[in-house]
Amino acid sequence: MTVSPFDHPLLSALLGDEEAARHFSVEADIDAMLAFERALAEAEAECCVISNNAATAIGSALALFRPDTARLRAGVARDGVVVPELVRQIKAAVGEPHNAFVHFGATSQDVIDSSLVLRLSGAVDHIGLLLSENIVRLAGLEQDFGGRAQMAMTRMQPAIPITVGGRIASWRAPLERHQLRLNEQCARLLVVQFGGAAGTLDRLGDKAAPVRAALAAKLGLGDAAQWHSQRDALPDFAGWLSLVTGSLGKFGQDIALMAQGGMDIKLSAGGGSSAMPHKQNPVKAEALVALARFNATQLAGMHQALVHEQERSGAAWTLEWLILPQMVVATAGALRLAAELAGQIESLGH
Amino acid sequence: MTVSPFDHPLLSALLGDEEAARHFSVEADIDAMLAFERALAEAEAECCVISNNAATAIGSALALFRPDTARLRAGVARDGVVVPELVRQIKAAVGEPHNAFVHFGATSQDVIDSSLVLRLSGAVDHIGLLLSENIVRLAGLEQDFGGRAQMAMTRMQPAIPITVGGRIASWRAPLERHQLRLNEQCARLLVVQFGGAAGTLDRLGDKAAPVRAALAAKLGLGDAAQWHSQRDALPDFAGWLSLVTGSLGKFGQDIALMAQGGMDIKLSAGGGSSAMPHKQNPVKAEALVALARFNATQLAGMHQALVHEQERSGAAWTLEWLILPQMVVATAGALRLAAELAGQIESLGH
Amino acid sequence: MTVSPFDHPLLSALLGDEEAARHFSVEADIDAMLAFERALAEAEAECCVISNNAATAIGSALALFRPDTARLRAGVARDGVVVPELVRQIKAAVGEPHNAFVHFGATSQDVIDSSLVLRLSGAVDHIGLLLSENIVRLAGLEQDFGGRAQMAMTRMQPAIPITVGGRIASWRAPLERHQLRLNEQCARLLVVQFGGAAGTLDRLGDKAAPVRAALAAKLGLGDAAQWHSQRDALPDFAGWLSLVTGSLGKFGQDIALMAQGGMDIKLSAGGGSSAMPHKQNPVKAEALVALARFNATQLAGMHQALVHEQERSGAAWTLEWLILPQMVVATAGALRLAAELAGQIESLGH
Amino acid sequence: MTVSPFDHPLLSALLGDEEAARHFSVEADIDAMLAFERALAEAEAECCVISNNAATAIGSALALFRPDTARLRAGVARDGVVVPELVRQIKAAVGEPHNAFVHFGATSQDVIDSSLVLRLSGAVDHIGLLLSENIVRLAGLEQDFGGRAQMAMTRMQPAIPITVGGRIASWRAPLERHQLRLNEQCARLLVVQFGGAAGTLDRLGDKAAPVRAALAAKLGLGDAAQWHSQRDALPDFAGWLSLVTGSLGKFGQDIALMAQGGMDIKLSAGGGSSAMPHKQNPVKAEALVALARFNATQLAGMHQALVHEQERSGAAWTLEWLILPQMVVATAGALRLAAELAGQIESLGH
Repeated sequence: MTVSPFDHPLLSALLGDEEAARHFSVEADIDAMLAFERALAEAEAECCVISNNAATAIGSALALFRPDTARLRAGVARDGVVVPELVRQIKAAVGEPHNAFVHFGATSQDVIDSSLVLRLSGAVDHIGLLLSENIVRLAGLEQDFGGRAQMAMTRMQPAIPITVGGRIASWRAPLERHQLRLNEQCARLLVVQFGGAAGTLDRLGDKAAPVRAALAAKLGLGDAAQWHSQRDALPDFAGWLSLVTGSLGKFGQDIALMAQGGMDIKLSAGGGSSAMPHKQNPVKAEALVALARFNATQLAGMHQALVHEQERSGAAWTLEWLILPQMVVATAGALRLAAELAGQIESLGH
Repeated sequence: MTVSPFDHPLLSALLGDEEAARHFSVEADIDAMLAFERALAEAEAECCVISNNAATAIGSALALFRPDTARLRAGVARDGVVVPELVRQIKAAVGEPHNAFVHFGATSQDVIDSSLVLRLSGAVDHIGLLLSENIVRLAGLEQDFGGRAQMAMTRMQPAIPITVGGRIASWRAPLERHQLRLNEQCARLLVVQFGGAAGTLDRLGDKAAPVRAALAAKLGLGDAAQWHSQRDALPDFAGWLSLVTGSLGKFGQDIALMAQGGMDIKLSAGGGSSAMPHKQNPVKAEALVALARFNATQLAGMHQALVHEQERSGAAWTLEWLILPQMVVATAGALRLAAELAGQIESLGH
Repeated sequence: MTVSPFDHPLLSALLGDEEAARHFSVEADIDAMLAFERALAEAEAECCVISNNAATAIGSALALFRPDTARLRAGVARDGVVVPELVRQIKAAVGEPHNAFVHFGATSQDVIDSSLVLRLSGAVDHIGLLLSENIVRLAGLEQDFGGRAQMAMTRMQPAIPITVGGRIASWRAPLERHQLRLNEQCARLLVVQFGGAAGTLDRLGDKAAPVRAALAAKLGLGDAAQWHSQRDALPDFAGWLSLVTGSLGKFGQDIALMAQGGMDIKLSAGGGSSAMPHKQNPVKAEALVALARFNATQLAGMHQALVHEQERSGAAWTLEWLILPQMVVATAGALRLAAELAGQIESLGH
Repeated sequence: MTVSPFDHPLLSALLGDEEAARHFSVEADIDAMLAFERALAEAEAECCVISNNAATAIGSALALFRPDTARLRAGVARDGVVVPELVRQIKAAVGEPHNAFVHFGATSQDVIDSSLVLRLSGAVDHIGLLLSENIVRLAGLEQDFGGRAQMAMTRMQPAIPITVGGRIASWRAPLERHQLRLNEQCARLLVVQFGGAAGTLDRLGDKAAPVRAALAAKLGLGDAAQWHSQRDALPDFAGWLSLVTGSLGKFGQDIALMAQGGMDIKLSAGGGSSAMPHKQNPVKAEALVALARFNATQLAGMHQALVHEQERSGAAWTLEWLILPQMVVATAGALRLAAELAGQIESLGH
């Protein structure tokens, strides 16, 4: 099944990004969920909420655990989340008497949101590197061609001559600001979610805070109060993703416009046509525009999901799942394409 | 890779629909593209554009043809569309001298858009059946419980007593209107795309119209002038999909609200919780709201793609690919869930 | 206050449309609401629900009625809708004993939705005329320049020569399909809303159906079962508006692209620049793209409003008010601009 | 004309905000544009680009200047921007010989974007105060009722008891994070735009940087390189606005859900109904949901406008005008409503 081009065996070669997509595979998700359950048991043992024996038994079982995915799939259809069935399977693997301490004090959302954040953390690293690479490539173009002349185009009409460097700066400067923005929001985004059934960690009593801190540390995430119904960090990050693809969409649109007449730019390796062998289509440039408009569209949905009613909204939460992973992969795909496109530029200006 | 929940081995059990997703598999796409090339060769032979021998050779080769998908993938990355590489492979399979008549007079967009329409045709049939099933189920509920009383809720406050039948009618009547709407738009949607390099079928001369008519007939599609840069039928259909999911979202929201107190509705088989064994979550109802908001979000992107510049916009066209298949599957998934949810209703009203 | 460019004394000259905007003035809204109350009294008298004397008294009072808008404004802030305060004022104007029969059996939503539909009916007439004018103008361009040559541009690259007529047809044909679509949906859109407190017309007993039919006839609207929580006709119409602006956005984008080099098109009266006196900016063409992207954006919100919970959702309903009027005016503005832009085309092709 | 509820004499009482809307009146816009021209003349005189006499003459003329708005309106229709006609009028008011130094080295976009930022600066102050007020009010509720009990609702089902304080924290904590976010982005948002015809300040030679710095200082804005085609600060701010309304939408939705049964909350002064005198509708709570969904919808359009081609895109720029002012007013309106709603809460929990 390949409903999304990001999952499609053919189209993902153009639009997707393997490394980013890897973080949203079912394997990566389950790995992260198991890491959560393992870290939770360890943290709870350290804080004397469960026994060391229980934590050891859970850790050993998890090390060998292989989920029955058919039953996980049935669990999702029934429960709307995978965790109840996953925990059932883990408990069966742990066996008596320690199975009672699996997932102790946690709820499905703790596992799913923390797994998401763990994987976003990996995606953020990847995207950060791609972003830096783009900045470097644009700086390289500026060095090579920045001093040349080109005609400024305002409102799609020839205006006055400018340097190529001015045009390139308009592509690069926003990316540098996006680096700053990412730094600012990461501390709010990359934090553990741990609240228990209704956010109160009711089963942990006065151990709640230390267990959460230890859990966060073990997962390499920041510690923060539970945010199960406070979703602002996610649409904020989605907005950042769309700022990135929007800036790259401007780059792509500019390249496609420059390539029209073929005078202002020389591109290697354009796309071929099945009907017109003479054509060299600016395929990557066009894809950047498509991905920008895609992410801009999606962002609205992430903000709709802010209306997350009461202590947990199945509707708003599920909406995030439908949107955020694709925005991440679209952004990584766009960064990859933009870097490749910059590499195809053999000449700019005159 | 499973970036989209509709492709996800676990989440698709809740949110997806296998039958609808099947139409968007790479296999279904390639099958439909090969069907196009076969029908084109036959139509061109019938109209004496190519020889019967050529058409026979092409048909024979296509019957045995198995694409090299690794090279198709590389082709998409390079050309932005799969067709140039696919045609290259088909030509190689046909061999001299008839390979020159493969894809004769056609362009990539003819193949891709016609393949899309062919598969939408199958999806429309499936969705139409699901829609009918929902109407039947709601009529059944009306028959069983329509005469009972419940409290009308206006602006989320108790208003005056109404019959359950009134509430059910507000779920069913829009679905019946959606049936009418689908009938109206199908004739515009389910038509062949055939225009050649720039929409003029320049290589077919005065045979252009009869070849197109024959091609359409062989594919079971309507005949229509090329629409390569006139995309209105697709966002119109996307709007229809979102009308359907929006109406089902209202149904889901109503059910979830009724289930809060548990007085107005009795539902079987709610979803379980990993932390609270006593809970029966209205999982399908919530998913209906999520899918409604998802499709509403996506629709904006399909309408952005109407700004399809000149004779072919790589950017606008690619944007459609990123959105439309998911809207179709979301709609089929919502219809499946709604029918299941209706089946879980054991009692309504008093 | 001029938060929206459609209301802005300066910007509306570019982006708005006076005739369409007129339908959304407070005066037009109140006139339509008073027409509803008058027609309702007459219909109820004809069906013997209220006395002829009451209807006459109500009619006479309404003929002279001038609302206290400051108190209406306060009423909206308090009640979320204007009708409770408006009815209070009308009742005061009618006086004893007939005031008890003002708004008899109706609810706020009946008045507001019917007023909206009445005004949409006027806007649809206006937009339909503008649409026809555009089709005529494009047919004129086709007659004047259709036989000339121009270079087809696919994926923003020169493809093969086509006739200007082919390009113009890609602008005109969608508009003709939009005419058909409007006809199809008008019968569903232009219907009265009359349901009473919770949609049951509970206070009218067996007179409910004849009163509603008479009311509809007096208002010049179709008769239909109440649709207070079934909003599908409105987002369907919004989708139509966005199809129109999307098609015009393609026209605008094409014109702006043709005007870049100035070879393929000759336009009179471009926009001036404060810095570059030599420029002739394709202002109307750009505005068409902006309005297309605006309506595409808005459409998502109208579809979100389909999740209209229970018998009346203040949240979903209010969302419609925030969006639909602007979409109507944007569409009328775009049609006006497109017709003007077509009139500025002095030459196309070679 | 009152196409937008934010401009509507009646509806703005519910949905709008007078103080925020004031910044988007034509008067405020013209005042800010004149302030720009005055500051520019002063800055250029200080940097010896124009004579002190010229600056004095320009300042004197501007002090008395009253625009001919009918001609401004015609100018917008013709030029797509008001500035060419406005500068023409200012030059006429200044007269020979100093009129040549009006708007010297600037372009329309410099004036319009800087005017926007100046007014956003005022709006940000206002919104910041409203945000603080909301935080204070929620802290007050926490103090009054935080220790009471209520039932947590997860997935719209009763879960386990929590304290009212936990619920309130989920409303307040996001607002506090929004304060941090606003601080972070203000330095990027509230900067002057000054680039001249194509961003190079070509007419100012080596005085470009000092003139821009002086201009920024006089306007009370930050100094920054021109950003005429780098629009990231605006959609980033729009995203912030939608984060705020999204968080308030969750608050509104929670209140409306609590008010359903009337057990968990006591609200004063609900809205009245024209048909059901017994009702107390949670009008402000519903409006918060509507405004949240409105801003979430709009945000997509602001991100579409990031694809701002070349040195100035009339299409993308105009799209911003259609959206951003309404998002600002929607946010101020939502903050005002939320504070009022918090003030109506007489009791929470048990």
